[in-house]
Formats: sequence, structure tokens, C-alpha cells
Amino acid sequence: MTDDARAIVAQFLDGSPFVSFLNLSLVELDAQAGTVTMRMPMRPELERGGSMTGQFHGGAIAALIDTVGDLAVAVRVGGAVPTINFRVDYLRPSTGNALTATATARRVGRTVGVADVDVMDEQGRLTAVGRGTYSAQPG
Amino acid sequence: MTDDARAIVAQFLDGSPFVSFLNLSLVELDAQAGTVTMRMPMRPELERGGSMTGQFHGGAIAALIDTVGDLAVAVRVGGAVPTINFRVDYLRPSTGNALTATATARRVGRTVGVADVDVMDEQGRLTAVGRGTYSAQPG
Amino acid sequence: MTDDARAIVAQFLDGSPFVSFLNLSLVELDAQAGTVTMRMPMRPELERGGSMTGQFHGGAIAALIDTVGDLAVAVRVGGAVPTINFRVDYLRPSTGNALTATATARRVGRTVGVADVDVMDEQGRLTAVGRGTYSAQPG
Amino acid sequence: MTDDARAIVAQFLDGSPFVSFLNLSLVELDAQAGTVTMRMPMRPELERGGSMTGQFHGGAIAALIDTVGDLAVAVRVGGAVPTINFRVDYLRPSTGNALTATATARRVGRTVGVADVDVMDEQGRLTAVGRGTYSAQPG
Repeated sequence: MTDDARAIVAQFLDGSPFVSFLNLSLVELDAQAGTVTMRMPMRPELERGGSMTGQFHGGAIAALIDTVGDLAVAVRVGGAVPTINFRVDYLRPSTGNALTATATARRVGRTVGVADVDVMDEQGRLTAVGRGTYSAQPG
Repeated sequence: MTDDARAIVAQFLDGSPFVSFLNLSLVELDAQAGTVTMRMPMRPELERGGSMTGQFHGGAIAALIDTVGDLAVAVRVGGAVPTINFRVDYLRPSTGNALTATATARRVGRTVGVADVDVMDEQGRLTAVGRGTYSAQPG
Repeated sequence: MTDDARAIVAQFLDGSPFVSFLNLSLVELDAQAGTVTMRMPMRPELERGGSMTGQFHGGAIAALIDTVGDLAVAVRVGGAVPTINFRVDYLRPSTGNALTATATARRVGRTVGVADVDVMDEQGRLTAVGRGTYSAQPG
Repeated sequence: MTDDARAIVAQFLDGSPFVSFLNLSLVELDAQAGTVTMRMPMRPELERGGSMTGQFHGGAIAALIDTVGDLAVAVRVGGAVPTINFRVDYLRPSTGNALTATATARRVGRTVGVADVDVMDEQGRLTAVGRGTYSAQPG
């Protein structure tokens, strides 16, 4: 990881009270492959509740997708970028002690960047997928 | 509001640790119009942070949209429903003491329901819009 | 309708072989309300086929949504704009001699514009909805 | 390719006037990988027109994505399925004599299936991506 990428990740993890609350940690940043992987541990406030004990709420998964997708574009353009829009599809219940999200920038142009995000549980099952469009101009 | 609707809203607000954390409250449920309006107050953990003091993080807005859209379908089918997918578009920075989200079920069929969600700040500006597809079968 | 808007609509209807093929016609352009309504008649090439005689194919409906949403942003920014992305939800089979699509620009900022599109059949039933993000810079 | 898959593809290519108009042809169906690749040649009616000579209109690309994504789910569930919704992101102008779309079913559950679609030009550049949700029940 370059120093620039390291600085952007640190800015992400420390600069936002919401991201701090989600307690995200960097698993891997593979600049060659253009992928970023982060881990979000379960905490009581993120539970969906009801009869589905131990399941992450979809809103928490959406927040994870938004954030990690942003980071995949951010390391390409040199700083955190505003989200324009994103879509999340829930494929399976997301349970366990933690989720892992891997984001890949599919294309970064002059105006916008598009990132795909795959969310896995600890068994390696794909539980949700996201696709976001971000501004390509940090700020 | 019918007793059934009241029970579904109570189940929403009390049954999920995540929704409790978001601290949502019901503003209006207009069964005639098929709309549900909820309010999400700012709290430190929901801040985007950085130089944009007082701005809600997009992930928190996405969670608000997912939840209120779900409720608009839930009151039509008689219970909380799994989210299949949703899209959120951020139109303006979302700042202030609270956001208000109004969801409308555009169509509820046998298999799925589709809801639109408009998010407003306290000045009545539209700051984000969401569109979600939910299962039409409670469970 | 202003002369500018009239010129943009004419450019839309005449400038693209694909739009000519779809045979779209302007029903109403309400600059006050910020809405554009266009009509797409059935033609044999647009049929879904199979056992669903007389049903528009979803791909034709998607093309209608993309085009009319674009026009709603175009009249605001003064010229046709590139589509960045859009989503289409199919709510009911779309049958009959023609479909009508009404697009509303929800927000046009410096970089992008967002438009909602409602598709109706001749009975006034909502058969599909679209939401698109377009560049706010004509070209 | 199994006889079943062959029959489903034939049903797709021959059963719909709209798909016939798009003139799609099967490039590869890899049941092992769960991918379907189809080719759509340029024809005058699919051109975007204007100053962008030789560019496919976005509506035609959306129709390609919808159709090939559907096929990826169809071969898994044994017949063509209704599209529930899809999203398309345009990454680059799509020019040339033909486009190739590869669809992968990311997950097929009891109720719905989700497919990703990558669209490439003849130079192998990714020009658009799609993600669709389809009913998992043929009919």
C-alpha cells in the first residue's frame, strides 16, 4: 500500500463518527487488483432483531457497502468522494460475528466512478451485493 | 390508523435494536394516501464528520430509507417484510437536527412490493430519494 | 413551451435513429411543473411475444424511461445529456396500443440531475417506474 | 450445453419479436461457470445518432442487459422469468459493429434471482454494467 492510500484509509476510519461507530477495519487494500476489503464486526446496535437473532440489519449492510465502495474510488482519485447513488441487493440473511466487504472500482472517469461491492459472511457466503456511483472529484 | 397498523408500527419501532438505535419516531401514517412518515433525529454516531459538521452520513440515510420503505409495504401486507433491494440517490447534503422520510407504496403485488421514499430536512428541502423492492410476504 | 424547450424536444425526436424507431411523440411539456410526457405506440418489433400477446417488452419500456427521463433533465440544462445510470421497476404487464411516460426532474445540480419516470398504459394504470441519473452538462 | 438449456435459449431467441429485432446470438453458455454470453450487432435503428456516429443508444444496451440477465436466471430455473427490476450504468460510449454481454447469476433463491451483466465492445472494453432482479418462477 502506498503512503497516499494509507492516508486515505486512515482518513476514512478516523474522520467520520458514523464509520467509527460501524467499527470498520481494513483487511486488505490491493492496489494492483484495485480492490479494498473491510470488516464490520457485529455489535448489538446493528442487529435486525425479532426472531432473527444474530442477523445484521439491512441498513447496516447498506452503510458498509456505501463506505467500502467509496473507498475503492477514493484510493483511485486521491481522497474521499461524495456518493451519488447506490443499489444494494440482499441475497441471504447476514449472520455471524462479522461481515467482510470487498469493493472493486469498475470504472473511474472524469466525472464519476462506479464500484461493485460483495459482502460475505464468515463462512464465505455471498450475502449481499452493492453497486455505487460516486463523484470522481474528492471533496 | 387501524389497530393492525398501530401494531405493525410498534413492532417496527421496538422489535429491532438497529431501528431503536436510529431512534425513529412515527410522524404520520396516512392509510388513505398509503404513506408513512418517520423522523430520525441527529445523534453523534450518525454524523458524516470531516469538514461537513452536522451532516448525516449517507449510510444512516440509506438505513432510514430502507426502514420506512419497508413499513409502507408492511402496513399493506400485514407485517414486516424482507427487503429485496433498494436504491438511494443523494441530492443535497442532509444537515440539521432531524430528517423526515415519507414512504409511499407504489405497487404491492403477490410476490413483491415497491415503495418510494422522499427524505427531507427541517427546511423541507428534498435531500435524498429512495426506491425499494420488498417481499410481499411477511416473515 | 419556450422556443428553447421546443428545439430540445425536436432534437430528441429527430436526432436519434433509435428514438425515431421507438416512434415517440410529445404529449405535454409542462415547464411550470417540470414534467415531460411522451407517448410510445406499440409496433410489432416492441412486442414481448410468447403467450403474452400484445405486451410491450421490458427492454422497450426501459428505453422509453431512459429517453423521457433524459428529456426532463435536458430541458432544465439546455440540451440532451448523457445517461449515467438508471433503474427500472416493472409493476404490471404493459399492454395496449401505447404507453405514456411522464418524467419529473427531482433535482438538477451542477454535476448530475435525477429524474423520476412513471409509465402508464391507456387505462391509466401504472405499469413501470424508472429513476435515472444524468450528467448535468449537455454534450 | 444441456438440451434443456438449448431449448431455453432457442425459446429466447425465437419467441420474442423484440429479441428477434435486437438480433441477439448466443456466443457461449457455460453452465459450469453459470455464465451466458450473447452478441448484439449494430443496426441502423439502434444508433444513438447525433454527432456520435456509430454509437449504440443506451436504450438498446439496457434491453440487451435485461435480456441476457434474464437468460442467466432462466437456465437455472428452467424457463424465461419476469424481470422485477434492473439497473444499468453506462461507463463509456458503446461503439463498433457489435456488443457482447456476459451475464452471471449471483444468486437464485426461491422467490427471486439476481444476475450481473458486463457489456463489452469489440476491443474488450467494459462499456456498461447491469444488475437485475428476476422472479425465480418461470412464466
